[in-house]
Amino acid sequence: MLPLGGDKFHEECGVFGVYAPGQDVGRLTYMGLFALQHRGQESAGIAVTDGRSIALEKGVGLVSEVFSAEKLMGLEGNLAIGHVRYATAGSRDINNAQPLATVSRRGSLALAHNGNLTNAESLREELSERGYLFQTSSDTEVIASLVAQAEARDVKSALISALEQVRGAYALVVLTPDRLLGVRDPNGIRPLCLGRLGTGYVLASESCALDTVGAEFIRDIEPGELVSIGAEGVQSVRFASQDKAVCIFEFIYFARPDSKIEGVGIHESRRRAGRRLAQEHPAQADLVIAVPDSGTSAALGYAEAVGIPFGEGLIKNRYVGRTFIQPGQQLRELGVHLKLNPIRDALEGKSVVMVDDSIVRGTTSSRIVRLLKSSGAREVHVRVSSPPIVSPCYYGIHMPTYGELIGARCSVEETRKRIGADSLGYLSLEGLVQAVGLPEEPYCLACFTGEYLHGRRQVAKGAVCHA
Amino acid sequence: MLPLGGDKFHEECGVFGVYAPGQDVGRLTYMGLFALQHRGQESAGIAVTDGRSIALEKGVGLVSEVFSAEKLMGLEGNLAIGHVRYATAGSRDINNAQPLATVSRRGSLALAHNGNLTNAESLREELSERGYLFQTSSDTEVIASLVAQAEARDVKSALISALEQVRGAYALVVLTPDRLLGVRDPNGIRPLCLGRLGTGYVLASESCALDTVGAEFIRDIEPGELVSIGAEGVQSVRFASQDKAVCIFEFIYFARPDSKIEGVGIHESRRRAGRRLAQEHPAQADLVIAVPDSGTSAALGYAEAVGIPFGEGLIKNRYVGRTFIQPGQQLRELGVHLKLNPIRDALEGKSVVMVDDSIVRGTTSSRIVRLLKSSGAREVHVRVSSPPIVSPCYYGIHMPTYGELIGARCSVEETRKRIGADSLGYLSLEGLVQAVGLPEEPYCLACFTGEYLHGRRQVAKGAVCHA
Amino acid sequence: MLPLGGDKFHEECGVFGVYAPGQDVGRLTYMGLFALQHRGQESAGIAVTDGRSIALEKGVGLVSEVFSAEKLMGLEGNLAIGHVRYATAGSRDINNAQPLATVSRRGSLALAHNGNLTNAESLREELSERGYLFQTSSDTEVIASLVAQAEARDVKSALISALEQVRGAYALVVLTPDRLLGVRDPNGIRPLCLGRLGTGYVLASESCALDTVGAEFIRDIEPGELVSIGAEGVQSVRFASQDKAVCIFEFIYFARPDSKIEGVGIHESRRRAGRRLAQEHPAQADLVIAVPDSGTSAALGYAEAVGIPFGEGLIKNRYVGRTFIQPGQQLRELGVHLKLNPIRDALEGKSVVMVDDSIVRGTTSSRIVRLLKSSGAREVHVRVSSPPIVSPCYYGIHMPTYGELIGARCSVEETRKRIGADSLGYLSLEGLVQAVGLPEEPYCLACFTGEYLHGRRQVAKGAVCHA
Amino acid sequence: MLPLGGDKFHEECGVFGVYAPGQDVGRLTYMGLFALQHRGQESAGIAVTDGRSIALEKGVGLVSEVFSAEKLMGLEGNLAIGHVRYATAGSRDINNAQPLATVSRRGSLALAHNGNLTNAESLREELSERGYLFQTSSDTEVIASLVAQAEARDVKSALISALEQVRGAYALVVLTPDRLLGVRDPNGIRPLCLGRLGTGYVLASESCALDTVGAEFIRDIEPGELVSIGAEGVQSVRFASQDKAVCIFEFIYFARPDSKIEGVGIHESRRRAGRRLAQEHPAQADLVIAVPDSGTSAALGYAEAVGIPFGEGLIKNRYVGRTFIQPGQQLRELGVHLKLNPIRDALEGKSVVMVDDSIVRGTTSSRIVRLLKSSGAREVHVRVSSPPIVSPCYYGIHMPTYGELIGARCSVEETRKRIGADSLGYLSLEGLVQAVGLPEEPYCLACFTGEYLHGRRQVAKGAVCHA
Repeated sequence: MLPLGGDKFHEECGVFGVYAPGQDVGRLTYMGLFALQHRGQESAGIAVTDGRSIALEKGVGLVSEVFSAEKLMGLEGNLAIGHVRYATAGSRDINNAQPLATVSRRGSLALAHNGNLTNAESLREELSERGYLFQTSSDTEVIASLVAQAEARDVKSALISALEQVRGAYALVVLTPDRLLGVRDPNGIRPLCLGRLGTGYVLASESCALDTVGAEFIRDIEPGELVSIGAEGVQSVRFASQDKAVCIFEFIYFARPDSKIEGVGIHESRRRAGRRLAQEHPAQADLVIAVPDSGTSAALGYAEAVGIPFGEGLIKNRYVGRTFIQPGQQLRELGVHLKLNPIRDALEGKSVVMVDDSIVRGTTSSRIVRLLKSSGAREVHVRVSSPPIVSPCYYGIHMPTYGELIGARCSVEETRKRIGADSLGYLSLEGLVQAVGLPEEPYCLACFTGEYLHGRRQVAKGAVCHA
Repeated sequence: MLPLGGDKFHEECGVFGVYAPGQDVGRLTYMGLFALQHRGQESAGIAVTDGRSIALEKGVGLVSEVFSAEKLMGLEGNLAIGHVRYATAGSRDINNAQPLATVSRRGSLALAHNGNLTNAESLREELSERGYLFQTSSDTEVIASLVAQAEARDVKSALISALEQVRGAYALVVLTPDRLLGVRDPNGIRPLCLGRLGTGYVLASESCALDTVGAEFIRDIEPGELVSIGAEGVQSVRFASQDKAVCIFEFIYFARPDSKIEGVGIHESRRRAGRRLAQEHPAQADLVIAVPDSGTSAALGYAEAVGIPFGEGLIKNRYVGRTFIQPGQQLRELGVHLKLNPIRDALEGKSVVMVDDSIVRGTTSSRIVRLLKSSGAREVHVRVSSPPIVSPCYYGIHMPTYGELIGARCSVEETRKRIGADSLGYLSLEGLVQAVGLPEEPYCLACFTGEYLHGRRQVAKGAVCHA
Repeated sequence: MLPLGGDKFHEECGVFGVYAPGQDVGRLTYMGLFALQHRGQESAGIAVTDGRSIALEKGVGLVSEVFSAEKLMGLEGNLAIGHVRYATAGSRDINNAQPLATVSRRGSLALAHNGNLTNAESLREELSERGYLFQTSSDTEVIASLVAQAEARDVKSALISALEQVRGAYALVVLTPDRLLGVRDPNGIRPLCLGRLGTGYVLASESCALDTVGAEFIRDIEPGELVSIGAEGVQSVRFASQDKAVCIFEFIYFARPDSKIEGVGIHESRRRAGRRLAQEHPAQADLVIAVPDSGTSAALGYAEAVGIPFGEGLIKNRYVGRTFIQPGQQLRELGVHLKLNPIRDALEGKSVVMVDDSIVRGTTSSRIVRLLKSSGAREVHVRVSSPPIVSPCYYGIHMPTYGELIGARCSVEETRKRIGADSLGYLSLEGLVQAVGLPEEPYCLACFTGEYLHGRRQVAKGAVCHA
Repeated sequence: MLPLGGDKFHEECGVFGVYAPGQDVGRLTYMGLFALQHRGQESAGIAVTDGRSIALEKGVGLVSEVFSAEKLMGLEGNLAIGHVRYATAGSRDINNAQPLATVSRRGSLALAHNGNLTNAESLREELSERGYLFQTSSDTEVIASLVAQAEARDVKSALISALEQVRGAYALVVLTPDRLLGVRDPNGIRPLCLGRLGTGYVLASESCALDTVGAEFIRDIEPGELVSIGAEGVQSVRFASQDKAVCIFEFIYFARPDSKIEGVGIHESRRRAGRRLAQEHPAQADLVIAVPDSGTSAALGYAEAVGIPFGEGLIKNRYVGRTFIQPGQQLRELGVHLKLNPIRDALEGKSVVMVDDSIVRGTTSSRIVRLLKSSGAREVHVRVSSPPIVSPCYYGIHMPTYGELIGARCSVEETRKRIGADSLGYLSLEGLVQAVGLPEEPYCLACFTGEYLHGRRQVAKGAVCHA
């Protein structure tokens, strides 16, 4: 059985920071991380400073599991940063939990990072050659090392100097004893936004975390921008200037529907994608259903556009969690299924459109189609509100290799057969781009095109769609 | 802040039983309880027998918290029963966790019970007078005592003799070293259904638990019926004959949408209620939204009927759990809200119909209306897919007193003002009854009418709708 | 590997009670149980009353594991009782943890019990025949049932009536909403003493628990005496009058050396036994060592009497606990040993007297002799400060069957060979009785003689000392 | 109330390493750490390698709390190192738990360290100046950084190069993918010994850990020696040559009585100190008792020498642990005492010699003298088997400042008055040195003399013995 998120891409992290002397910044960060929990369930951490030293708590598990009331009480101060992490590898390893707290000639510093550096390995080797050591396998430690070794007068300059050496995607929050820093990579691949909380400020991967703590959205951090927040307010530096290339998967799947990224409301963007999908791949059917929960917005748009009722056809058990004991092969063969249960009455004899946001391996789609059919659905028309995925991501998303990507190996018709659908339609790239609707189309689309930033191009060679 | 379920009635329990020699009955019960987790999150327990002795594991918490793989391995046998419990009182007390395992001249016996006896106190006193003692405050112990003291040749007869003395609502599963028994009270207030699992059988509060373990639905247990399941199959006895009076709140709120009760699919029933509500209380608006998750089915029906788009306006954080640390008064005043986040873009300047399944105290409705308005909604029209609640329930639902029931104290218009809605419409009782649609209308409607079974009638006297 | 206590008899329980309005009785009971922890490590519980209701906390594990600061804060009131339990069977079962809280026509009652009823089974059957049920397998529940069914005006009379029906050993503390009761069985087999704490009173299995909470020892409860403690002070009733027969194993092994039982200081009593043992079985040796910790007092006495230096030869690892992972067969064969480590220097080439308090199965003795010899001891002379055990105990001690008792099957010489000692000497029964020194010798000696109270006599028949 | 160890110096760490391909090295390390648990109870960790990567588990708590059977199963390989740590500061911080696993141009490396570097701060600053960062406050990270930056061909040379830069005390075990290294500082202040386990080898802080895993003692590692253990056996390098200066407190208090350090059996050494103490400070008394457990060996020696019986006068509760809830001020004033209970009978009217191994602050001595007197002791003569402590330690022992050391502020007579003893005698430094008995007296005695290694001399100035 697949892990919780099932057959999806996985965002690796969510970050949060708050500068608010006089407020309970530890608890605010806890609340903020809780709003970002969908971006990472493997570990959570909070670093807080009272101006003198940095206190750090982190652990393996959900935010609610890692922090007790007692631990939160130990996290008092003026500013704080926090992190939730999705483990790329299977291991639930405390060593890679963030924030990372370091002491160097730059003073005390804690960092939390969402993203992935594409030159981390070569930087690591270079630093190793110069006698550096590493205690984790995280990119954050590479950045911290570059900050420590930078010849610069202050943390901000050192951080900029460090960032000039790294390539890839990052949204970074950094805490010093008196300042909160936030950075977004030169292409702005990973999101980061700024909000106002009374006389203080908040940084977060998504605006839903601002809402949760009662902060007012100000703006997204710009690609290549560093903001430095202290007693005097927010200072901004543009340390790099490249084309904006926001990860389009934030709009498709990662972000929470109630977040806004680059001014685009996620729910509405997905609904538009559903409408456009209906135009490109209409279906004659009795019912439109969503694969819960991420397909719902697009399914609503699809249903509206084709004028077929939207309905609930699959109920998701909300209590499936990390510690749940799986049924085991024997029971699964008996028909035990825990996560999704079909509503037979709603499906019996019906022709159903099943809307999902994306297909990665195709395994979950195949299982759900089978479930719908065995629950009486006459026809199942699968509609996907994004194009086939043909290439892996190198910018901070945990994803399968070429061999595992059904879109890299199989044609649409082959995929249809593999998942057992009566018809299959993917939203076109053009359609997706228009649905999201940012002017000048500043997206990273590498997973759909194989054309990576900075000119690399890579596609699967000789991939075969075997049964 | 209200507990997880917020301002809702609370079902007290879910029960499950399985007779399946050769199968992993402990794990099947675990899966079944997991499907019934929405009926009770306070404690969970499983009793299993190998024909000689009864092994029992129970504890405070969710099913996934109470049982480890190790504990499940200790629960091997031929038949098992399980229970999830919603604490009526605030206390999370291991003493009241079920099943209850007893030894008496009837042999070893374990019982698990959903419901509430209306004469439990007098039976307790009577038994006490005769020298009995009680170790819990559960009705289950009263039934077990009556079984023990019954003059009867076997467990079945003793159980029937016991049940002839109790009044109220119950769905009961009982395990003996070689048989699984299931009983529903003479009015069939609480649900219980029977399924087939290979050559074995399953009993469950709701059919979704049958689906989850791969069992095939056979039928509901009849009011006043006792089934006894053993090596020779299912035997049935009708020990009482009264009018059927199924709790209508199962259809409104308790049961999972993918369950069927008395042949009625819950999702479809709620959708019909939404349609009917639209006829009774149409609204001119831009958007229909549901109070997640329980209002969704009715909201879909409402939107269909009035021809206004259904949309997502409120996002529920799926990670709020029992162990979550609440934000505290200070942070709440700052605007911190954890459970529901509005999608501002979807609401801005819109006239919104907000569909909920019921209003108990009115506190949550009031909070959500305020949240919607502060997120830009121009108008909020509240529609409720059941009538005002005017009387408490005595049949196994945890519910407030008269003084707390807004429907018992305030007129619809007063309620509208209290919750800050621009309009408020409740589904009529007639409309509800027709939407559920069982022939001959065999419902317990006491909470909406004050007319209890067996002729009692009780309404609030002199209740005042104070601000 | 044997459990913590190794090859010893196991006391089943320790009880504690405190009546001290205005004091933190929950915490005092916690401290008291902690002092009695050596009498039972499997489960612990505290019941407390504020005069209205009884609050109960119990769980599996050590006192420090079962109770958190938070739980203790929920245990406020005027009087409290507590219990620590040694599991007779292997199972660590929450169901049998005590105190047992019950409600009956006698009102609310909590009971905690140390001992064992010899007619529990027949009473259980009798009560079952009359329609009673049982939820545990503890004798305490039998007593509680008899109290509930007794025709009596008050709890005290009901308790006396109940006790008149039971046979066996018990030290019992009972809590009602306003009184603390304490009882010792007609022979006084199990100990119970009374102390003064300011204006309040304390009952405890051993006087070391009085010391720990700062209470002043008043006296032992008499055999067949019931004390009832309330606002007016201590009332005493003698409900039975039989010959005193205190369990002599309290003096040999169970009680803590710093306790006094029947006026006899345990440490001094054991030291006298060691001196007497030296007279009966002197040894020519270089060094006297104890099997830690229970053999220390006797070893000191032995060393004094023979004029050979007492020394440390075996170091016990204090960190071995219930959750420790055992080394496994493979590692044990490699020579891994966790619990005891010999001091090679102290043993090398020496003739050693090894003093233990008792030998039950002989397995541990055999292992220790081997360990001493492999550490260089030239000769090992085993001296035991009690006679061979020839019969099991039926009065509340967990002990092996005849077949497992090496003293029931093997002669002293056979035993010596089996454990590999160069010589073996047991203290005579007469010597033991004189060492303890109570006037009129009011002991239960059944395990050494097979002559049980009330005339039963039972010895192993045809037992063989096989290798 | 003082922490577990009470008023004692605290050793900071214990280290263990095993090279034994084919054996269960993870579990062997677990057993070894368990034997060394007395050297540190705050955190524990194990690193293991299978030749490719290093697996690491560490956590806060006792060895038995940090490691579950499941975690141990994940620690398979050919060689392993482990560490137990006593927190110097109050914080129980996972960040400072060891081993420390690093990756650098030296490859993968894990280090575990017992001791304290006297130039750690300046090395840290120097490394910081060169752009290094630190993630912990441990000296181990300083050593690891020096290893990483050393210009050397291999790990061994790099380690030696690193050690040439550090000053202070260390016993270090290092794990690489194929070798186990062990080092002792040039003065051999902290102990480390080597044993044989089948065809493999073991390194441990104390020989009792060798005994526990069934390894055979070979020899102590020499001061300034590095051993490198691999497939070909043990290679030795002497990287520094200075005067041996073994910490004498290992003999007085730190080491387990069953260990041997520098060929000296700890128990016998303490016994000799007790005998010598008797010659220097005889007493006319009825009874010699020990402050358990560390004073026992010396008390036995004292008793032998003066011909007064050794007895038990104080019983230590073995169940006091880290999670125990303290009685609070109110209960303590009531006389509640948990850890030590006097045996009143043994003390009543007696003149008692109370032997302790050392006095640091004097607070515990004072409390125990009071306890003995209130239990009836007529006179209490305190004898201490080491000299007054006049200076703090800088070599890896957690200890108070000058102001807290009673020996640095008060004369013997002043100290006697402060602790309420009838007489007080400390063993002379000469007596101690002779009792330990190593030829050429190669000890670090700084805490007794203020004369530190390398010529520093430091004593308290103007210290006053205030009440």
